[in-house]
Amino acid sequence: MQRYFVSKSNWSNDEKVTITGNDVHHITRVMRMDVGDKLICNHPDGRAATCIIDQLVNDSIIVSPIEWRNEVVELPINVTIAQGLPKGDKMDLILQKGTELGAFAFIPFQAERSVVKWDQKKIAKKLERFNKITKEASEQSHRTHIPPVESIYSFKQLLDCSEKYDVKLFAYEEEARSDSFRRLSDVLNEIEPTQRILACIGPEGGYTIDEVDALKLAGFHSVRLGPRILRTETAPLYLLSSISYHFEELR
Amino acid sequence: MQRYFVSKSNWSNDEKVTITGNDVHHITRVMRMDVGDKLICNHPDGRAATCIIDQLVNDSIIVSPIEWRNEVVELPINVTIAQGLPKGDKMDLILQKGTELGAFAFIPFQAERSVVKWDQKKIAKKLERFNKITKEASEQSHRTHIPPVESIYSFKQLLDCSEKYDVKLFAYEEEARSDSFRRLSDVLNEIEPTQRILACIGPEGGYTIDEVDALKLAGFHSVRLGPRILRTETAPLYLLSSISYHFEELR
Repeated sequence: MQRYFVSKSNWSNDEKVTITGNDVHHITRVMRMDVGDKLICNHPDGRAATCIIDQLVNDSIIVSPIEWRNEVVELPINVTIAQGLPKGDKMDLILQKGTELGAFAFIPFQAERSVVKWDQKKIAKKLERFNKITKEASEQSHRTHIPPVESIYSFKQLLDCSEKYDVKLFAYEEEARSDSFRRLSDVLNEIEPTQRILACIGPEGGYTIDEVDALKLAGFHSVRLGPRILRTETAPLYLLSSISYHFEELR
Repeated sequence: MQRYFVSKSNWSNDEKVTITGNDVHHITRVMRMDVGDKLICNHPDGRAATCIIDQLVNDSIIVSPIEWRNEVVELPINVTIAQGLPKGDKMDLILQKGTELGAFAFIPFQAERSVVKWDQKKIAKKLERFNKITKEASEQSHRTHIPPVESIYSFKQLLDCSEKYDVKLFAYEEEARSDSFRRLSDVLNEIEPTQRILACIGPEGGYTIDEVDALKLAGFHSVRLGPRILRTETAPLYLLSSISYHFEELR
């Protein structure tokens, strides 16, 4: 069944839901649904209900919740991916796949070796597109939460905001070659449900020595993601998959 | 250090190695290396040596191994990904990322719901490109093995070849919604090092009921890959990451 995220103001006491915006086009034109058809509406608080279409108005659709769904599709821990700005359209891939794999939020940051520098004028437009990608990927993967994509942080802003997190990690390519790495499983074993994790991924060229020192000083643990060298866009997918496996599939 | 795979016939008793083909252009033009510079040569048997450039000839480069490298970068189990033909250029993504994540081999297969049908005339050209992708991804991720990409199998050929594997899995979207799924970790816990695994991923539309029945009859275990619905190209990346985490990072 197709799934749509509906903002809080469009829910009238959980009895009527009004769908507006681009979703109206998707429901009537792409999915060709009509009165009496069913779809799933996600409430921003994480709940979801199967709904039936009551009425098609010009630019909105009125639906009624007929059953609240009992779903556990969100990771038991909150993982925010801080991604050093990568080249080209790799950020799109990270956002789409990272959302499917359960990320809680994304923070793109300007790393010293990030080749791209984002034009201030284009940031608003890019963020709009990024948040559209995570919304669509949430719907497609049947999630109940849409991971927000923050505006671009400087490295200093990233360090400052890291204080809000319970556990801080960074994937460090050099760890893959050393014997002194901290095992990812040792880190994950210490995490309690509902804790907030900030996982930092370097850009294509990796971190500079100064960045590594600053991350360690700020309390980030370096981890390796297997013994092979991963591209910057593959690293967050490995990390999120392993976290899902550890908390959702392992026993 | 840059890494190149050199075919067996170009190794003279492990004392001289002759690099030919496209790699010559890469070494001299892209990397701008010269006599005395070092690079890594991978032998097809899985060993790798640091080598020094002795001589640049027109269309070949002669290097001498100076040190054999003691590397464990390959997954302790062999995982072959059988991928239902996906749309567009998703196969490229699966091959590149799957290689980084340690896949042993790839078998693209024609599933009933595969939207693309490959033109017989174009298969040779496509396979050439696919094998180039896995070669380059192996070099980039510092692997000692290049995962071969088999020619396209029919579903029947896939079932026939599955007899050669010790453990057979298929990712089944419906499992994510049922309570009766077999846990991936239970399957992985039973696997012994050096065993051969065949993991089957459906195309965008998933498997047909007939295909699911045939897979089960042929001894494939269905597993879920977390509770979220993954796209066809994300599923093999989740599976390979989890296998790496289980065998290489977990204790």
